[in-house]
Amino acid sequence: MDRKEIHSILEAALEKGREAIPDGEVASYIPELSKANKDHIGLSISTIDGRRFNIGDTDIRFTIQSISKIISLAVALEACGPDAVFAKVSMEPSGEAFNSLIDLDTDINKPRNPMINSGALTVASLLLPKVTFSEMKIFAKKLCMDPDMELDKAVYNSEKANISRNRAISYLLESKGIIENDVEDTLELYTKMCSLTVTAQSLANMGMILANDGIDPTSGTRLLKSETVHIIKTIMFTCGMYDGSGKFAVHVGIPTKSGVGGGLVSVVDKLMGIGVYSPSLDAKGNCIAGRPLLQHLSKELKLHIFERNNRM
Amino acid sequence: MDRKEIHSILEAALEKGREAIPDGEVASYIPELSKANKDHIGLSISTIDGRRFNIGDTDIRFTIQSISKIISLAVALEACGPDAVFAKVSMEPSGEAFNSLIDLDTDINKPRNPMINSGALTVASLLLPKVTFSEMKIFAKKLCMDPDMELDKAVYNSEKANISRNRAISYLLESKGIIENDVEDTLELYTKMCSLTVTAQSLANMGMILANDGIDPTSGTRLLKSETVHIIKTIMFTCGMYDGSGKFAVHVGIPTKSGVGGGLVSVVDKLMGIGVYSPSLDAKGNCIAGRPLLQHLSKELKLHIFERNNRM
Amino acid sequence: MDRKEIHSILEAALEKGREAIPDGEVASYIPELSKANKDHIGLSISTIDGRRFNIGDTDIRFTIQSISKIISLAVALEACGPDAVFAKVSMEPSGEAFNSLIDLDTDINKPRNPMINSGALTVASLLLPKVTFSEMKIFAKKLCMDPDMELDKAVYNSEKANISRNRAISYLLESKGIIENDVEDTLELYTKMCSLTVTAQSLANMGMILANDGIDPTSGTRLLKSETVHIIKTIMFTCGMYDGSGKFAVHVGIPTKSGVGGGLVSVVDKLMGIGVYSPSLDAKGNCIAGRPLLQHLSKELKLHIFERNNRM
Amino acid sequence: MDRKEIHSILEAALEKGREAIPDGEVASYIPELSKANKDHIGLSISTIDGRRFNIGDTDIRFTIQSISKIISLAVALEACGPDAVFAKVSMEPSGEAFNSLIDLDTDINKPRNPMINSGALTVASLLLPKVTFSEMKIFAKKLCMDPDMELDKAVYNSEKANISRNRAISYLLESKGIIENDVEDTLELYTKMCSLTVTAQSLANMGMILANDGIDPTSGTRLLKSETVHIIKTIMFTCGMYDGSGKFAVHVGIPTKSGVGGGLVSVVDKLMGIGVYSPSLDAKGNCIAGRPLLQHLSKELKLHIFERNNRM
Repeated sequence: MDRKEIHSILEAALEKGREAIPDGEVASYIPELSKANKDHIGLSISTIDGRRFNIGDTDIRFTIQSISKIISLAVALEACGPDAVFAKVSMEPSGEAFNSLIDLDTDINKPRNPMINSGALTVASLLLPKVTFSEMKIFAKKLCMDPDMELDKAVYNSEKANISRNRAISYLLESKGIIENDVEDTLELYTKMCSLTVTAQSLANMGMILANDGIDPTSGTRLLKSETVHIIKTIMFTCGMYDGSGKFAVHVGIPTKSGVGGGLVSVVDKLMGIGVYSPSLDAKGNCIAGRPLLQHLSKELKLHIFERNNRM
Repeated sequence: MDRKEIHSILEAALEKGREAIPDGEVASYIPELSKANKDHIGLSISTIDGRRFNIGDTDIRFTIQSISKIISLAVALEACGPDAVFAKVSMEPSGEAFNSLIDLDTDINKPRNPMINSGALTVASLLLPKVTFSEMKIFAKKLCMDPDMELDKAVYNSEKANISRNRAISYLLESKGIIENDVEDTLELYTKMCSLTVTAQSLANMGMILANDGIDPTSGTRLLKSETVHIIKTIMFTCGMYDGSGKFAVHVGIPTKSGVGGGLVSVVDKLMGIGVYSPSLDAKGNCIAGRPLLQHLSKELKLHIFERNNRM
Repeated sequence: MDRKEIHSILEAALEKGREAIPDGEVASYIPELSKANKDHIGLSISTIDGRRFNIGDTDIRFTIQSISKIISLAVALEACGPDAVFAKVSMEPSGEAFNSLIDLDTDINKPRNPMINSGALTVASLLLPKVTFSEMKIFAKKLCMDPDMELDKAVYNSEKANISRNRAISYLLESKGIIENDVEDTLELYTKMCSLTVTAQSLANMGMILANDGIDPTSGTRLLKSETVHIIKTIMFTCGMYDGSGKFAVHVGIPTKSGVGGGLVSVVDKLMGIGVYSPSLDAKGNCIAGRPLLQHLSKELKLHIFERNNRM
Repeated sequence: MDRKEIHSILEAALEKGREAIPDGEVASYIPELSKANKDHIGLSISTIDGRRFNIGDTDIRFTIQSISKIISLAVALEACGPDAVFAKVSMEPSGEAFNSLIDLDTDINKPRNPMINSGALTVASLLLPKVTFSEMKIFAKKLCMDPDMELDKAVYNSEKANISRNRAISYLLESKGIIENDVEDTLELYTKMCSLTVTAQSLANMGMILANDGIDPTSGTRLLKSETVHIIKTIMFTCGMYDGSGKFAVHVGIPTKSGVGGGLVSVVDKLMGIGVYSPSLDAKGNCIAGRPLLQHLSKELKLHIFERNNRM
């Protein structure tokens, strides 16, 4: 496929996404997030063989939010080992909303997976003795090939001021012996990671490196172990879109993770990463433009995991 | 009935209770509570007309724990008014364990009643702008006719060190707008109230004053409004024994509240208060000797609410 | 109190109830029930000493619905003994809606109480080998002092045609070994009992006989054992108004049972029975006029269980 | 890879599975199933290019059980269309056990996915007006390339005699308007489909045809539409192993469906089908040998969806 042909598919995909924007709402539970421009939408693609495609608002900075759960999980898997991580958090799709407490307080007694808040807070707690936030930020910049990632202080402060539910989850985890390190430090690391800024382009890069088995193809540097990357991609596929993950897997079929800042990162294995920015969210907290946009891309470029042509 | 006759009934009741002790366990989730002597058992009665009966270990001091929920609710009802209190906490039996979070996070979104932890923490929060702990303690001393009530610092510190679950509940309540005052101050007041020391005798006095419509008969002083006392007694009847309240109502039929310190207070309306101390608890967190002991008393003295003879 | 004075209190109470009617709705899930006249309201009182008061629509026939749960429980307690009954169904307030399946399928694995559908279906199953529906009807007529009670065939057929949920509950109970007799026979007995017709007057009589310890004062015949009546009254108090029982206990304080046909029966122990008919229901399935009407009565006549004057 | 090399990998995989057998139990809730020989274990592979590998007990007949949910879903998707099917049943992993009622009775009000009983019963109901059981059986024979598939009458009768829970689920679905056709007919079709007999070889064939986009490669006949096969494979991946699906996806990474008869079918897309028989089950109802066996295969042959080499 030539560049022009691809471009016209991407543009059509963006339009599919744009049509869904009015049905969603910008996140309002954190005041600072509600300032986003609901009409913004951007689509970036970064291929392993070095091509870049950017359409729409792909250089606007927004906070990474839950997409940081991937980065934290990856670092925890490497720093602690999968066994230690999965002793504390399961890897089952939850069927529950992202901030559910219910599952946690039944006989399961373990967060369902690292993509929901309870699981990600558990992962953050595991990271505390291993890395500092500064080190995490340095790693995130590499993974996103984005040297401009910074903590958005306004968002960070806004989140800290609206953190009661995550604090409740964390203390519940402490009461069950799942969080063993300091709860307030855990919340700080978690919230800081959520407050890092990215663009659709940085997300596309992150997805591309995951598609490339954890290796940055520009330098040949391995950033993550192969095993880590397999786990991450599988969990993105089964749990990445909260309680909409199953439908997304059927219709789109690409491992994807969303954040309430409006970002989406998708991994087309061995081929490319996709980054989307569109802050209008559906009721589950996923960017509402994401599914129609990616469904169009998936269909036109044959990216569904069970319908791959492995070329573009 | 003469004193001797009553005494022999009380002794038989105490023996009924004592037989159940081996089937229970001293509270272990707070280390300091686990030091209680499981074999201790005491029964005190205080009648409106001034009689006192004490059998067994009735002068041992222990912490009041959840029985303080009655005192806090009573003060909140008077300080804030029933409408303000019940805007924040329901008055339905919960059918759930005392420390349940589940109900709280479903569509109910309001603690089920003031006798479970979530409800009592809500009440404590309502009290913050109205009274200090010192004032609460002074009032508790009057209500129990027990000038020696003090904060048990060892228990208080032990509880503070094991407070994660109550902290989780409180922050969840804050996230839902139910707790509007400071969460850490709420936890401190709640925990201090739980750590006040009583004896079976003080509990019998408290029950007697509630039986006497809130008036201390020795001085004629009204400590609580009639309306407050009606509410308290009804809620003790329907919710006082956690998820064992229904069975207790059928078999014993006397408004009663338990605490994990091993105390029980019962109100035989217009007649007397009963205080029990026995730190061996059943699986629901109620003193295990309580039901057989009080069932015997209820039967022999005809104290069941639907079988009262109103004399003794 | 003279007759005229009482009459004027009853009339005021009826008006309190009438004011609430517009806020409710006639039951619609069973088509035949939806034909009731929402504006009908009647209040009957029957005292142990033989006085009768009837105000409003007290001779309109309607189906007894869930109030029959009291009759069935009473007969089961006598035919099988309390131990056999409570081996199959608990006596805890449920905190859940009347037709909840959730509790039933958690670790409890036993209906919470005999006043919710799952518990009443269990009771009906226990009755199968002991009595026929004809015998139940004969007994119900005696208990209500109402020789005209009959099966309302139109309602019965309408309920049978809308029985899926109760059938689901019953088969779930069978799968757990709680219902051991034929499920379809159980459903038939249960539904027939619900379809018996009463008036506010018959309900007042039933309440009066329960207030009189199970003895019909006109003949001196004991219809129910004292023990049975105590259990019934206590369970009515703690569980009679579904998940509104706790609030009702605080505000009204009289053991009461509701039915979706619009009936209410209240037992003022040792004094009188109260029957109410008003088919406009609140969201919990209780007659919406009931609480304000009975709250007024309770206050004016001092009928609250913790504020009784035992006279009228 | 030559045949001998592959054979030795399969033998090693079988041994990995065999080691897990003692930790599981043969299904006991249906008496007839409990007669299976716990020590049996067989592994069959059927490749698109016509190779067959059979190791161990691959010609023992057993009932297909929940694996039939795939066949029924496939037929329903073709007969009714995906929109009609997914209007009645979601496609989200449930996080709950296979026979859960809870989810069904909360605000979701729709079975979570077609791989749990409530979802599969809904699918069976949708099939009723479209196909007969005989037609379903003929289709199943083609899909499994197994002309000897028959109804196991002993198992069918045993299941019918222990069907209360599925009957409860079905009537609950009827009460919610999800099952609109006859409930008893639905149960019969569902149970008959579960009682069809297969071997590890027939399951391998079914998996192979799904891997081949729904086309039987021996005849070139398309048995299922491409769209249907994509949906089936994705749902197998996210939901095929009940509440163990997420862990299975990470460790094995091959779309797989289990049945309590001891069968497993796996689809290695574009390459082959795998059939396993081992009736010793884990606590979630999945064949306990399955995960270690398939994990070994997946690792050695690089079959994980995110680590495919697409050759063998």
